[in-house]
Amino acid sequence: MKVIIVGGVAGGASCAARLRRLDEKADILMVERGPYVSYANCGLPYHVGGAIEKESSLFVATEATFRQQFAIDCRTRCEVVGISAHQKTVELKNHVTGEITTEPYDKLVLSPGAAPIRPPLEGIDLPGIFSVRTVPDARQMREWLERGATMPSGMDKSTGCQTMTKPQRAVVVGGGFIGLEMVENLVQRGLEVTLIEQSAQVMPPLDPEMANLVQRSMTKHGVRLELNDGVAEFREADRCTLEVITSSGRTHPADIVILAIGVRPETTLATMAGIEIGQRGGIRVDEQMRTSNPDIFAVGDAIEVKDFVTGQWSLVALAGPANRQGRIAADVIAGRDSRYRGTQGTSICQIFEAAIAQTGVSEKTLTRLGETDFEKIYLYPNSHAGYYPGAKMLAMKVLFRKSDGRLLGAQVFGEDGVPKRIDSFAMAIQMGCTIYDLEESELCYAPPFGSAKDPVNFAGMVAADILRGDMPQCHWDSAGNAFLLDVRNPPELAVESIPGALNIPLPELRARLSELPREREIHVTCRSGQRAYYATRILLQEGFNVRNLAGGMLARSHAASDARSGSSGG
Amino acid sequence: MKVIIVGGVAGGASCAARLRRLDEKADILMVERGPYVSYANCGLPYHVGGAIEKESSLFVATEATFRQQFAIDCRTRCEVVGISAHQKTVELKNHVTGEITTEPYDKLVLSPGAAPIRPPLEGIDLPGIFSVRTVPDARQMREWLERGATMPSGMDKSTGCQTMTKPQRAVVVGGGFIGLEMVENLVQRGLEVTLIEQSAQVMPPLDPEMANLVQRSMTKHGVRLELNDGVAEFREADRCTLEVITSSGRTHPADIVILAIGVRPETTLATMAGIEIGQRGGIRVDEQMRTSNPDIFAVGDAIEVKDFVTGQWSLVALAGPANRQGRIAADVIAGRDSRYRGTQGTSICQIFEAAIAQTGVSEKTLTRLGETDFEKIYLYPNSHAGYYPGAKMLAMKVLFRKSDGRLLGAQVFGEDGVPKRIDSFAMAIQMGCTIYDLEESELCYAPPFGSAKDPVNFAGMVAADILRGDMPQCHWDSAGNAFLLDVRNPPELAVESIPGALNIPLPELRARLSELPREREIHVTCRSGQRAYYATRILLQEGFNVRNLAGGMLARSHAASDARSGSSGG
Repeated sequence: MKVIIVGGVAGGASCAARLRRLDEKADILMVERGPYVSYANCGLPYHVGGAIEKESSLFVATEATFRQQFAIDCRTRCEVVGISAHQKTVELKNHVTGEITTEPYDKLVLSPGAAPIRPPLEGIDLPGIFSVRTVPDARQMREWLERGATMPSGMDKSTGCQTMTKPQRAVVVGGGFIGLEMVENLVQRGLEVTLIEQSAQVMPPLDPEMANLVQRSMTKHGVRLELNDGVAEFREADRCTLEVITSSGRTHPADIVILAIGVRPETTLATMAGIEIGQRGGIRVDEQMRTSNPDIFAVGDAIEVKDFVTGQWSLVALAGPANRQGRIAADVIAGRDSRYRGTQGTSICQIFEAAIAQTGVSEKTLTRLGETDFEKIYLYPNSHAGYYPGAKMLAMKVLFRKSDGRLLGAQVFGEDGVPKRIDSFAMAIQMGCTIYDLEESELCYAPPFGSAKDPVNFAGMVAADILRGDMPQCHWDSAGNAFLLDVRNPPELAVESIPGALNIPLPELRARLSELPREREIHVTCRSGQRAYYATRILLQEGFNVRNLAGGMLARSHAASDARSGSSGG
Repeated sequence: MKVIIVGGVAGGASCAARLRRLDEKADILMVERGPYVSYANCGLPYHVGGAIEKESSLFVATEATFRQQFAIDCRTRCEVVGISAHQKTVELKNHVTGEITTEPYDKLVLSPGAAPIRPPLEGIDLPGIFSVRTVPDARQMREWLERGATMPSGMDKSTGCQTMTKPQRAVVVGGGFIGLEMVENLVQRGLEVTLIEQSAQVMPPLDPEMANLVQRSMTKHGVRLELNDGVAEFREADRCTLEVITSSGRTHPADIVILAIGVRPETTLATMAGIEIGQRGGIRVDEQMRTSNPDIFAVGDAIEVKDFVTGQWSLVALAGPANRQGRIAADVIAGRDSRYRGTQGTSICQIFEAAIAQTGVSEKTLTRLGETDFEKIYLYPNSHAGYYPGAKMLAMKVLFRKSDGRLLGAQVFGEDGVPKRIDSFAMAIQMGCTIYDLEESELCYAPPFGSAKDPVNFAGMVAADILRGDMPQCHWDSAGNAFLLDVRNPPELAVESIPGALNIPLPELRARLSELPREREIHVTCRSGQRAYYATRILLQEGFNVRNLAGGMLARSHAASDARSGSSGG
């Protein structure tokens, strides 16, 4: 059996190695257009930033590894330039010799990845504008960043312009994962960074109020954020610098520009092979990674995947899923019955000292799908026992189904303990957990690592309080004209108070019930919603019409700005 | 309804607060024998060590909180000295006034905890010997440790002996959680520490080869470990120091001794009430925390719990379960149908820069129960992408059922990323995961936090390779007389080689098959078992009778010493 694998990173490399393990006799050819296979593309921003110092660290396995250890015919700088699905052949172009050869296959695996989007803007090909996809990309960025330092001032032969100083000002275009990682790494290198993002928030998979926490953290570190603005044009300026002109007409000077607008599945080969492309623009595959042509498989960033929670087709460029898909394609080619379960979108991104992570579905997506059978909660627990040094507040949003309590999604931001919680949620979603299961989860606890009631337990408890009717809840952005009760202590109000709210500290509440209206809905708040929950329990049992304002003052503070202005609570 | 809760820490405090939230009208009396309620007993070792500087940090909630915020009649220094289950009354002794009163109850909740075991040894009541249970215990230890620093040398009035110097030598008796936490904290304070443990390993819930990693780490930090030796006697020595005499006849001088031999459920009150005590010596309850008397509930360290995995009754003194049990007892008293699911034994302990964590069942326990339908694997993945700085090797042992792949237990040791992995395993066990589910788990990945294939995925893959028959495996301690093949590279052998093993580096294997015997079983090894897996795949398909030595040289290095000496591989 002859198997040709197109693309030697993540999905392709996983597929090749797995297939060799399953079938010692298979004739496996893996071709990669670029100079390297199996490199750590997720590490590129950190290599540009300097956290990963040596380029050689990025090579997980080399062409030699594949040849010697896996007996795989591995060819770099070799591109598929034609596919005949009818004849089951591919045309390969050797970029070193220029030679084109034809190779037959029994099974073909496409793992071409996704290409950075480069809109046809004026000036987009100017020197100093980079995308982040390959090791040579990273190398060129590093060289550009070192330029001013390594060369005398004066004429720079390679660009033909005057480089007076080392680049100091960067503009990153696009606030997705790669954009944010580049922002952080450029700041770490000492650059002044401006991030331009066309939409109203960074990190499109997040809900806006959680993205707000990320935005705050970036601003705190001196990043200039330009949301709701796109790039209209790039211009060359004096002394080999650039100007980024935005749709709103602003001009941002830049010594380096990073394009991280997003990626688009590479479907040229798929189109050549005549296989089906899905509505989202990715290669359509079944749960065994088989395309519409049964002899052609596709894996990785180029394919559409089923969202594990919603069942919708989606494009998700993540390394973990790509690796698992490569493995599954190999299994199926080797005659096994492996199946891909869909993608949960579990992801994490370092934002300076913090991390933002997500798994499952967002409120945004649920709303887009017209879903109404869900509820959301916000909570702000400590990352570990508050009495042990180093505890940091986590900000968590959790989404669950109202009808049966099924966990739908979670978003967590904080400086400590984020991966631990998002992985618990990720495992829970995979296994179809309800919020009642989260209440009972037995997670590890010692003072340096957690709490007797872990934040994950707390999420279950808060959500269950709502579904059991123990804690009616409302949200700042849809609170309406209710009576507002603030149960915090007076010193807390001195820091930030809510105009028009009645303050009754929780310990005094039972004695002061007569101050509360019986004919109006009462919305209770405190710092995070916990004491407001206690107050809600008291008032509910005393016959009041009461709701807890989800997430208290903390949720109010990072609610999306448009939601905040529409709040009646303020 | 009048509810009396006996014990105001963890389980008792949780129960009281939850009951108030559920029933604003209940008459709740919570009594605590000691001076404080709701204190962080898990934090006591860290307070002694100084990581938690202020004693006040340990008070999660005070008597005043319970009275004011929860309207609970909370009485400290108040002990239950009698129970009449027939009359439904308790006799309360006020330790301040000495007064004894009788209080009726409708429901009684016992949360007395477990008491440190103090064997009737000669000298056990000498000054300088401490147990770690309460805030006053910690305070006395701190005072004792500061003694030499704060007092002039000469006669010490309180003990009547000469204290010349600040304590420098500590002996900790017992190597369970509290013992280990005390060892670490005393080392952090600058003391020379000896740990005496009667059994052959520290941390009894762990399997010995994993405990071995903990032992190594302690030894590396200068702790003197005395395993397989118990305390026979304590003696007073010169200048207010002590001598600890062990069963083997050794003498260990000590300026302070910590007794952490273990705990025993406090069942005096239960016996007084005539309720059933289980075979393990704890109060027997049903899954609603009800004792054999339907009006008496019990929670926390005093009860026996069902092991979530084995279904066996066991004693597990952990804060998380105690809190959940308190909550469930309150639910049931308030008329709800909550049920406790059993205890998984999820736990974690900091060992200097490392952590050891566990969830589910150990091999030891499975063997004790006569279970044979299980397999174990060892793996040593990086805590996050190896190319990103700071990655540390994790040592993982994972147990699963052979017949259906169900995950049974996991033990993880390492300096980074331990809580993240153990919580994924804990959630997986709770939800009845199989190792096939672990293969497909989508956990968070970015270079600082994980790998595209997370260690949890790896565990699933290795286990599935075994169950699918792709990788026959054997263990160092039961390897028998097989032909040993080492597929590492020669430089690795220079560091540590195995006498009698044939070395064929993996890349050369396919070309050198003729050097291998076809009539004998071949056991393959490498550093961690991964290359040996690749070799196993090749040999298996080439018709050899081959097994991978689980965990490679790394597993061999920390196998229990008796197992190691019995190994044929060495």
